[in-house]
Amino acid sequence: MQKLMNSPESYVQDMVEGIIAAHSDQIALLDGDFRIIVRAKKPENPKVGIVTAGGSGHLPLFLGYVGEGLIDGCAVGDVFASPSSEKMASMIRACDSGKGVLLLYGNYTGDILNFRMAADEVEFDEIEIVEIIGRDDCASAPAEKAGTRRGVAGLIFGYKIAGAAAEAGYSLAQVAAVTERAFSGLRTMGVAMSPCVVPTVGKPTFSIEGGKIELGMGIHGEAGIEVADMLTADEVATLIFDRINAELKLAADDKVTVMVNGLGATPLDEQYIVYRKVAMLLGELDVEIVMPHIGEFATSMEMSGLSISIMKLDEELEKLLKAPAKSPFYTTDNM
Amino acid sequence: MQKLMNSPESYVQDMVEGIIAAHSDQIALLDGDFRIIVRAKKPENPKVGIVTAGGSGHLPLFLGYVGEGLIDGCAVGDVFASPSSEKMASMIRACDSGKGVLLLYGNYTGDILNFRMAADEVEFDEIEIVEIIGRDDCASAPAEKAGTRRGVAGLIFGYKIAGAAAEAGYSLAQVAAVTERAFSGLRTMGVAMSPCVVPTVGKPTFSIEGGKIELGMGIHGEAGIEVADMLTADEVATLIFDRINAELKLAADDKVTVMVNGLGATPLDEQYIVYRKVAMLLGELDVEIVMPHIGEFATSMEMSGLSISIMKLDEELEKLLKAPAKSPFYTTDNM
Repeated sequence: MQKLMNSPESYVQDMVEGIIAAHSDQIALLDGDFRIIVRAKKPENPKVGIVTAGGSGHLPLFLGYVGEGLIDGCAVGDVFASPSSEKMASMIRACDSGKGVLLLYGNYTGDILNFRMAADEVEFDEIEIVEIIGRDDCASAPAEKAGTRRGVAGLIFGYKIAGAAAEAGYSLAQVAAVTERAFSGLRTMGVAMSPCVVPTVGKPTFSIEGGKIELGMGIHGEAGIEVADMLTADEVATLIFDRINAELKLAADDKVTVMVNGLGATPLDEQYIVYRKVAMLLGELDVEIVMPHIGEFATSMEMSGLSISIMKLDEELEKLLKAPAKSPFYTTDNM
Repeated sequence: MQKLMNSPESYVQDMVEGIIAAHSDQIALLDGDFRIIVRAKKPENPKVGIVTAGGSGHLPLFLGYVGEGLIDGCAVGDVFASPSSEKMASMIRACDSGKGVLLLYGNYTGDILNFRMAADEVEFDEIEIVEIIGRDDCASAPAEKAGTRRGVAGLIFGYKIAGAAAEAGYSLAQVAAVTERAFSGLRTMGVAMSPCVVPTVGKPTFSIEGGKIELGMGIHGEAGIEVADMLTADEVATLIFDRINAELKLAADDKVTVMVNGLGATPLDEQYIVYRKVAMLLGELDVEIVMPHIGEFATSMEMSGLSISIMKLDEELEKLLKAPAKSPFYTTDNM
């Protein structure tokens, strides 16, 4: 696992510079700061701002979802590390157009700490703030402790729903309400077969024995539920589906969207092999799948493995899911 | 390197079934045959058909480019193996609407043999056929032997140009002429740092020593120019750029498009770090970059490494590059 980089220290800045070099028609740095990504063009009419933040190493998460019908700004941390509260505060100010700002991010201690300090800072600017924290990883804690669960790939559905609601002119309270409703019917679980390397560390930060699969592993290599002997694709799909559906309790005529998310090194081939079984399992229950997402949406650099997310849809959520969205890394046009 | 699959024997069929389950609004199997992918809706007006074929293991190549403004059909082989001439012939017939069919594929012995047998077969159907073979990998043979070079990620630019020309109503001869012109100004070179596993083999089919990088390696692990000690991202970008530009001889005010293509396990982060340097090198020459492509377009399952392609543009090629295109794996809407 060798990295094509110039130095561990310049990894994040070089990456952001490359992204801006390629996509300056769509996204920009705030005041030239590579730690803060905003849309290249401000939305034409005032709208609720949607912002996020998180560590690097998860592309396209987080900054890849800054775009039309999605989010307005992203503060960029070092690999697997939260950005500072100062960057978050600058971003929040830049993304407020008088209708308030939704802070939408994953349940990680550093991000929570820094976002709350940032919220305190911008209080003096009279910016109305609501915070919603993604906790979709149902393998990271039992249902009784759902509040302690980690936020993973499901966050992207949060961006999609909140972003579409904001674009449609919803108030901050309305955006927050529909996003909370989306999260309440959204669960994710992942598996991993090999680790990744944090550039400044230079070697795998954890290990998975050959022939084994770690069930429920987090996107930073957080321990999962169990280390099992390698399973088939159908077994993995069924195991994750059962765990998710124990909570969602899907029934005939329900509608869902599905994400099969590659963690980095797992080929698209295998992601589709797993999706095939998920679609069969949902079909057996007469559950309709709307706009499936298969690909790399939230990675862990070169980790191998994948996650499955399922989100229940009602009429409003389906409409918001399907609303146009366009960023350099995500568009509704090929879903 | 463990695979999420059900069995090596069902790998390709399971993958194709998953893809069709997800994208049946855009693509379909011809007569239920998982070896032949066509568009779900035939183009409304007769147009030149564009077809391709190749082994599996390279997603989104090849079948991922069946779509509007791109190609019309793809015959699907086993991993790293050509599909049969019978499948190719059925596909050619299905994609002919009376204006002829362009066979557009990479320079591999099996594909050439089978496509030529297929062309012989459909001769009796009075379908006009032209064949164009991608040979963009400039590391696979010296310029004097350019005819023996392999076709790699540059093939996707071929699909884009030919597909747009066909959609615009060009005749078969005109589509062929503009595609040949695109290829004449197109070069690719890749590097790899770790191998991939063919499912039916079950172990890496070649090896790269730790701390080494293979310069010029092909997408099936074909040996490159040299095995070197690991290089920085800027060194890799410069080395490949210099080799490509020795042939393209770019000068001020030239326009190009660029593809940085991840081979599978290499994070998007690193692809953008390499793109950053390519953009700088082109900037130093005052060469303008149009619609850069960064991501996984032609992979080798879980191989780590990437390739860089550069294609010179004239006014017509630029227009065709930018023309709308939409498949489940590629859309101009986020470029």
